[in-house]
Amino acid sequence: MTTVASPRIDPERLIARLAQLGEIGGLAGGGCARLALTDADRAGRDLVVAWMRDLGLAVTVDAVGNVVATRPGREPGPPVMMGSHIDTVQTGGLYDGNLGVLAGLEVLEALAVAGVTTRRALAVAFFSDEEGARFAPDMAGSLAYAGGLSAEAAHDLAGIDGSRYGDELARIGYLGPLPVPGEAPFAYVELHIEQGPILEAEAVTIGAVTGVQGISWQELTFTGRSAHAGTTPMALRRDPGHVAMAVAGAVRRLTDAVGPPLVGTVGRISLHPNLVNVVPSSATITVDLRHTDEAALAAAEQRLAATIDELAAAEGVMVERRTLARFEPVAFDERIVGLVERTAASLGLSHRRMPSGAGHDAQMLARVCPAGMVFVPSVGGISHNVTEHTEPDDLAAGTEVLLRTVLHLAEAVDPWSTPDHTEDPWAEP
Amino acid sequence: MTTVASPRIDPERLIARLAQLGEIGGLAGGGCARLALTDADRAGRDLVVAWMRDLGLAVTVDAVGNVVATRPGREPGPPVMMGSHIDTVQTGGLYDGNLGVLAGLEVLEALAVAGVTTRRALAVAFFSDEEGARFAPDMAGSLAYAGGLSAEAAHDLAGIDGSRYGDELARIGYLGPLPVPGEAPFAYVELHIEQGPILEAEAVTIGAVTGVQGISWQELTFTGRSAHAGTTPMALRRDPGHVAMAVAGAVRRLTDAVGPPLVGTVGRISLHPNLVNVVPSSATITVDLRHTDEAALAAAEQRLAATIDELAAAEGVMVERRTLARFEPVAFDERIVGLVERTAASLGLSHRRMPSGAGHDAQMLARVCPAGMVFVPSVGGISHNVTEHTEPDDLAAGTEVLLRTVLHLAEAVDPWSTPDHTEDPWAEP
Repeated sequence: MTTVASPRIDPERLIARLAQLGEIGGLAGGGCARLALTDADRAGRDLVVAWMRDLGLAVTVDAVGNVVATRPGREPGPPVMMGSHIDTVQTGGLYDGNLGVLAGLEVLEALAVAGVTTRRALAVAFFSDEEGARFAPDMAGSLAYAGGLSAEAAHDLAGIDGSRYGDELARIGYLGPLPVPGEAPFAYVELHIEQGPILEAEAVTIGAVTGVQGISWQELTFTGRSAHAGTTPMALRRDPGHVAMAVAGAVRRLTDAVGPPLVGTVGRISLHPNLVNVVPSSATITVDLRHTDEAALAAAEQRLAATIDELAAAEGVMVERRTLARFEPVAFDERIVGLVERTAASLGLSHRRMPSGAGHDAQMLARVCPAGMVFVPSVGGISHNVTEHTEPDDLAAGTEVLLRTVLHLAEAVDPWSTPDHTEDPWAEP
Repeated sequence: MTTVASPRIDPERLIARLAQLGEIGGLAGGGCARLALTDADRAGRDLVVAWMRDLGLAVTVDAVGNVVATRPGREPGPPVMMGSHIDTVQTGGLYDGNLGVLAGLEVLEALAVAGVTTRRALAVAFFSDEEGARFAPDMAGSLAYAGGLSAEAAHDLAGIDGSRYGDELARIGYLGPLPVPGEAPFAYVELHIEQGPILEAEAVTIGAVTGVQGISWQELTFTGRSAHAGTTPMALRRDPGHVAMAVAGAVRRLTDAVGPPLVGTVGRISLHPNLVNVVPSSATITVDLRHTDEAALAAAEQRLAATIDELAAAEGVMVERRTLARFEPVAFDERIVGLVERTAASLGLSHRRMPSGAGHDAQMLARVCPAGMVFVPSVGGISHNVTEHTEPDDLAAGTEVLLRTVLHLAEAVDPWSTPDHTEDPWAEP
């Protein structure tokens, strides 16, 4: 074996890239808005792809716009994949998704600088439309990659702005030639900010993510009777806006009654015609429910459905339901969870096992390969907000854990039966 | 005196004009959308002004876009004015406002056909932005006409679409040379559809309107903290959307507790960023409260304000309040109310006294001259809706009452001391 330097990540390079990517779609106050398949998303994609090509990586694009950059290994076979997403919500921060992609890029650059070629190939991917903020369901790109959504079905997704996924994908130049589902990786590891308050509150640096809570997104459309706000006695009203807003109250009562870890959110509402002096003719809301236990999530959905029916009937309005997304809770591969824990311990970093409150691309990859995640703290637990922040030391620590974890997976002869770093020639002493 | 024919209104001509005007901004299902000072409003104005000019009327436009068409009398002095508005809400019907204007035009045409010149001048007006659906407050045009709003303040009103009243008024060519306040009429009578269910329910044809309930419009903006819908525990949320929607529930509880004639409506809401998986950072709603009694309306406002403060404090969100409109209840001139009653009786029409649930231009004119209104039934009590309808016989009956009422006011030597039609040479036997 030729002598090579031990690969080291460069936190300043990583942070500079996070800042540069964050300028695309940049918002006042520090965050950015790159809704999936918009011009801003295209500009972000172009920048990251340019960085991938600068590293000499082989870049492929598939039929739903997922981008995979691969660094060949000494042996043939599927890569150990890192990745996440670079689309954001409308009030997004610099780290959600972007960190997993750019940390993966940093890992590959660290290997290149050190002159290391691993046994197995390594790859870094960004998956389309993870947020689902423009095209529901969320995680559409990784869902398609893992075989849960056909390219045709993805292309027909309707955007909140009346656009069509396939048209927008072609418009921004990311309708690629590779089919979906994509090649199953050897393993998949995603670094992500926690987006919640737990690591910070407990002063723990690394979360070894055990799984992802189940997600239920539904859209409810209520239809009543438009009427004059001044002349229509209350007893004669059939006000769909009243019912929609009462459902939001019912969601909060449900989460109060069930307690953690159930969370429920009404984040979107529209009334028609939405005027001060008109009882609306229709109202549409979305309800986002999440729980780590499938039976508890299903029970919460059923309880809410009964309340919705009662509220609608009492006001004499019609209700239509549409499922925007429904994912059962996912458990990550115990071998990956354990590897992340041991890697953090070997680096002297505080760590804990924890579930993920948010959905992530890793839960889709978990359908086709051993998969897991590494969490780093979010200051104030804040995410989906322009003030989203993770301290530089935590960004570096998480990227270091990612590097050591994927090095073991890519280098060990049998990483599943040798759950330590003894086969890693670059392991720290 | 020369022999002249008794003036007769032509219901078919009136209904044809209502239909023709309704085609401008026409909606599927039969209604129309002509928000104030839009291109559709301009087209509607142009059509009505053309009809006014066809009758040889002198048409004037003032600095806020109010249009008055005058038919000279035998003696000098201010006219007996009829009128209403031709702007509509986004889901408007064919009759709200339009009836009062086109019935006034029909009265003037009936006089022209009959060759009648009245003692006093007659006029028909349409006032700008009665609905307030684009530029709050509602009744802005007649408020300015009556001296309650300067032209400068009207011009600076901001539209819900970011437009400016003065700019839009100039753009559509209705920034006229006449100052506001305008000339006080001798008297003002407005024919309008009831927009409520009472006349139909009681099988009464004519409402002699005693006054208009007080109106309170406020806009509430709640500011909280945008956060991830999956990872933010319920206990840590500061969700302004939750508070806004809870306020809508409080409005309904308030109307339930106080009872009729209090009505309350949350007709408009916006969340930012309005995405399924984001706890919003801000939420804005409007609250429309109305009551016939000023003290009761003020008490309802105060009670709601206290609840709003409690809800906002419990969630840790900030609240900003803005008054969009606030009008105290108005009592119409008893002499006009009595004249409408006696006129209906003399025509053999069923009639009753009643308050108006909606605000109307007549309440502004009541500040400067004796004013009153004539109501005709609304089928199903429905208004601000494309299915708004009034039966042709009721349209004709209301226009006949309008004709006989203004003939008395315009022809009697002293209409206030001769409360019958003995001085009306064209009165029916």
